[in-house]
Amino acid sequence: MHELRFQRAGFGFAVEARSSTCAARSATLDTPHGKVATPAFMPVGTKGTVKGVLPRDLREAGATIVLANTYHLHLRPGEDTIAELGGLHRVMAWDGPILTDSGGYQVFSLGHIAEVDDAGVDVRSVVDGSLVRLTPEGVIDIQRKLGADIAMAFDHCPADPTDRAGVARACQRTQSWLATCVERHREHGGEETGQALFGIVQGGVFADLRRASAESALAHDLAGYAIGGVSVGEERAHMIAAIDAAVPHLPIDRPRYLMGVGLPQDFFDAVERGIDLFDCVTPTRHARNHNAFTSQGRVNLRNTGWRHDARPLDPECTCIACREFSRGTLRHLCTSDEMLGAMLLTLHNLRFFHGLLARMRRAIEEDRLAALRNDVLAPMTRKLRPE
Amino acid sequence: MHELRFQRAGFGFAVEARSSTCAARSATLDTPHGKVATPAFMPVGTKGTVKGVLPRDLREAGATIVLANTYHLHLRPGEDTIAELGGLHRVMAWDGPILTDSGGYQVFSLGHIAEVDDAGVDVRSVVDGSLVRLTPEGVIDIQRKLGADIAMAFDHCPADPTDRAGVARACQRTQSWLATCVERHREHGGEETGQALFGIVQGGVFADLRRASAESALAHDLAGYAIGGVSVGEERAHMIAAIDAAVPHLPIDRPRYLMGVGLPQDFFDAVERGIDLFDCVTPTRHARNHNAFTSQGRVNLRNTGWRHDARPLDPECTCIACREFSRGTLRHLCTSDEMLGAMLLTLHNLRFFHGLLARMRRAIEEDRLAALRNDVLAPMTRKLRPE
Repeated sequence: MHELRFQRAGFGFAVEARSSTCAARSATLDTPHGKVATPAFMPVGTKGTVKGVLPRDLREAGATIVLANTYHLHLRPGEDTIAELGGLHRVMAWDGPILTDSGGYQVFSLGHIAEVDDAGVDVRSVVDGSLVRLTPEGVIDIQRKLGADIAMAFDHCPADPTDRAGVARACQRTQSWLATCVERHREHGGEETGQALFGIVQGGVFADLRRASAESALAHDLAGYAIGGVSVGEERAHMIAAIDAAVPHLPIDRPRYLMGVGLPQDFFDAVERGIDLFDCVTPTRHARNHNAFTSQGRVNLRNTGWRHDARPLDPECTCIACREFSRGTLRHLCTSDEMLGAMLLTLHNLRFFHGLLARMRRAIEEDRLAALRNDVLAPMTRKLRPE
Repeated sequence: MHELRFQRAGFGFAVEARSSTCAARSATLDTPHGKVATPAFMPVGTKGTVKGVLPRDLREAGATIVLANTYHLHLRPGEDTIAELGGLHRVMAWDGPILTDSGGYQVFSLGHIAEVDDAGVDVRSVVDGSLVRLTPEGVIDIQRKLGADIAMAFDHCPADPTDRAGVARACQRTQSWLATCVERHREHGGEETGQALFGIVQGGVFADLRRASAESALAHDLAGYAIGGVSVGEERAHMIAAIDAAVPHLPIDRPRYLMGVGLPQDFFDAVERGIDLFDCVTPTRHARNHNAFTSQGRVNLRNTGWRHDARPLDPECTCIACREFSRGTLRHLCTSDEMLGAMLLTLHNLRFFHGLLARMRRAIEEDRLAALRNDVLAPMTRKLRPE
């Protein structure tokens, strides 16, 4: 299995098991700050904190790698400040692996206040409205100072993955920017400095554009590759088309990261197609909106019907919210807008997401992923309502 | 030392050491849910949660007993709901001692929407504006259902402790309501049910009224006594006058609780005068406003000057905020309004308050309280500013 193992500088990726019926694989991603068993979900710590979670509890919830946002940290407190404070690991009080995105997705999501040209992007600061210039070189410089284990290349994420002309232009820029990013990354010392660079594949729903984007990225022989341009409000079928078009062209011995995804069903759809890494605000944002993912379905904790319910939120879960609190108490905390409500639901949802990915990994090892899919997703399609 | 020890049903109080120079004493308060070493500070869990703190972390911060608010829990989720959910210990996920206040202080603090008559109070709900009737009987019934270890009698807390006519009327009502509360508490089964009743002494700044109020309360031979009518915005000297007027008339073998206080200096002033228990929102509310208490003085974490400061908030503290985060990071979290900022400062401030009370207890045991006072309060008077 030599071709299923990659090792360079402090980084590695080793495929350990493969499904006999689909492209799913379990693997270990190696970074200077530790190993990540994949498939894995990365909680989002936008501004250097996964909202409402102490690092110790993040670890206890099952997180092994976290994501932070270059755009937000650049605005505040700034990469120089982060560096002075000891770097992102120290600031996040997280000694495990960290990945920083490049800001490409933020440029998309802030599209109304961003203008893209061939050399970079002008975008308004969400902090003070000032104009911020993001370029491929600059984004690599920022990420170098932040000091995450994995930096992402700066990409152009098109708003409409079905608009061929727009997607083609975005692919061109993404390809050209990647070359700039790779060069800048090398100037900084490359992977030897403890930071790997992942490339991003664009191409919307167009198989030929995805293929071309993947192949141009591959030319740089990077430590990992991401599929971008999904999670932009497109239909499910478009996301699946994007994965199907890109994955066959990505090397089997490098991690594949589907950016900004997603929900339990997405994890199965993507893992079956060979995806290893995910990130999304779903578990944390839903928690702050008082929605929980449970083994019995989705639960809206603001529902009056939970008021007298002394049962645990999810009888199959052993997180602190399920061990020590009842549905009735969680409802009280949520309707009273107590911080503790959002904190407990965040810990629960993270435990649910990390637990799900861990179960998927075991199922791949035991070659029974399809069976797990049915077990897990059937209740997921419903909302659990009080009796 | 027979007279320094009280034991009845599941409740007890044993004085273990006394200062040779002031009225300070260290003691152990015994409740059905465990012991409390005094002097002790009770964090405030208004709606059944100390804001932003997991129960496990509350324990780790040094809390041994917590307070919750009858008025707020009556409004939401309601005492019947709390009872159905297994009682307040279960709802708060706190298996240690709990004290519930009676709502008397809330009536004062909501004075603009409350009307007091001889039989009780009409007060507006802060949840929905509806009219709520609180009576001495009703408040005991509510607290019985909540199920705390210690219930407080319903008192009339006058807004101006220097208005003799108003204070005298409040004393009359407090005395009459206490008799009603004691009777109701006895009807419910008294201390044998696992809940003790503490009486409240009013009397403002008037020594004769404080004495009369204390003596009328003493007639009921209760498991503990509180000094109320302080922390209503009065001058420091008035608080001290209230303590001086009341304490000499309280039995030496029962805990003395100074309600709604306060700050480090208050703890020394009050403990030196024989107070055992305190509660206040100071550490938690200040934390949410991004103010910290440290061994080097008060710190406003929003101050720009902390931006690049990689040192711990308080080098003498071992809480998670001081162990794992820097001043610069805490400032970033606070100015970004991240939940984690308030969470960490809450844990730090609670650790500081509980640590201070524990040091005071040791100092009493070693008869060196005055020396500790000087050590602790000198830096407290200043605000720590960036260099």
